[in-house]
Amino acid sequence: MKLFDGGKAPNPRRVRVFLAEKGIDVPLVPVDMGAMEHRGEAVTSRNPLRRLPVLELDDGTIITESIAICRYFEELQPKPALFGQGAVGKALVEMWQRRMELNLMFCVAQAFRHTHPAMREWEVPQLPEWGEANKPKAVEFLRFLDGELANREFVAGDSYSVADITGMIAVDFMKPARIQVPDEFGNVLRWYRSVASRPSAAA
Amino acid sequence: MKLFDGGKAPNPRRVRVFLAEKGIDVPLVPVDMGAMEHRGEAVTSRNPLRRLPVLELDDGTIITESIAICRYFEELQPKPALFGQGAVGKALVEMWQRRMELNLMFCVAQAFRHTHPAMREWEVPQLPEWGEANKPKAVEFLRFLDGELANREFVAGDSYSVADITGMIAVDFMKPARIQVPDEFGNVLRWYRSVASRPSAAA
Repeated sequence: MKLFDGGKAPNPRRVRVFLAEKGIDVPLVPVDMGAMEHRGEAVTSRNPLRRLPVLELDDGTIITESIAICRYFEELQPKPALFGQGAVGKALVEMWQRRMELNLMFCVAQAFRHTHPAMREWEVPQLPEWGEANKPKAVEFLRFLDGELANREFVAGDSYSVADITGMIAVDFMKPARIQVPDEFGNVLRWYRSVASRPSAAA
Repeated sequence: MKLFDGGKAPNPRRVRVFLAEKGIDVPLVPVDMGAMEHRGEAVTSRNPLRRLPVLELDDGTIITESIAICRYFEELQPKPALFGQGAVGKALVEMWQRRMELNLMFCVAQAFRHTHPAMREWEVPQLPEWGEANKPKAVEFLRFLDGELANREFVAGDSYSVADITGMIAVDFMKPARIQVPDEFGNVLRWYRSVASRPSAAA
């Protein structure tokens, strides 16, 4: 098995943090996204959508999409459970993973891709007005999240989960997207410090 | 248990089609999204993000996000398996469900929300240029999907899955978004006719 990795980009990092939490070691094949290597033959032949990461199993099966790759490893090695336990627990982790992704990560990514000069070749057409429109949406979601985190330690409940991974990486991604976490969101900041200080965050 | 339902909007329909495939009957609470009822107290108190559908369990637990609700029912009643079977099967369904959602449904939704006059109050600011930019992206993804569907019956393999539900509903959503499936995509059209003729499609 090998994992075509994209370095510091958010999605490749989601999978590396997940694997670190599981204690699973997978051989990485580095792909330099800055040099547009993800549009080269090695990636395109495996994922015509030219996105990273890409997991190749020993029999040649290709799994793309960060969360699908994470779920594969969750099935192989269920402990520690990062997608929740029991029907309600799994549903709540999925709900929060999606909320973090669709209301935070997505808005931050749109802001980054549509306003950052380095993204002009990646996002065509680049529409700065659309990028800017997403910044307050990300902050509004963090306001909601701040209220939720008043009552619990982690995003989806009392246990660390894949929803925390998506959330932490979305918050880190706010920096190049030039969006700040307002100081008044004390619960978000406390949660972020906690998840960002786990050893897995360095993955 | 009760399901706050949003009528013909794509996400509420995803859950109803899923339940129909499972043969599960859940009491529905209709919410008229055209009359903005999803911004009223009944929904907002349960889901501050004001999105539908919302599932309320008998103990008061709230589950939002269509795919999280579907996964809850998959856990309660695993057969027929609509999220795949085995580690690889589950990962491939998740991969395809996400591909259909992020590369098709999402682009169609952006096109609809940013170009349709009825969406002016919903999507602020409404940016027609961003809506238009998404139309060719949806078609490009369908070109890729057409090649994939040359070799198999359903989106994620030989069995119908939640990825087919997302895909079918995204194709239906192309009509109000004013995007056409090009006639040359014969495999997509064959697949669409097949999934749209299942009794569940009427849900």
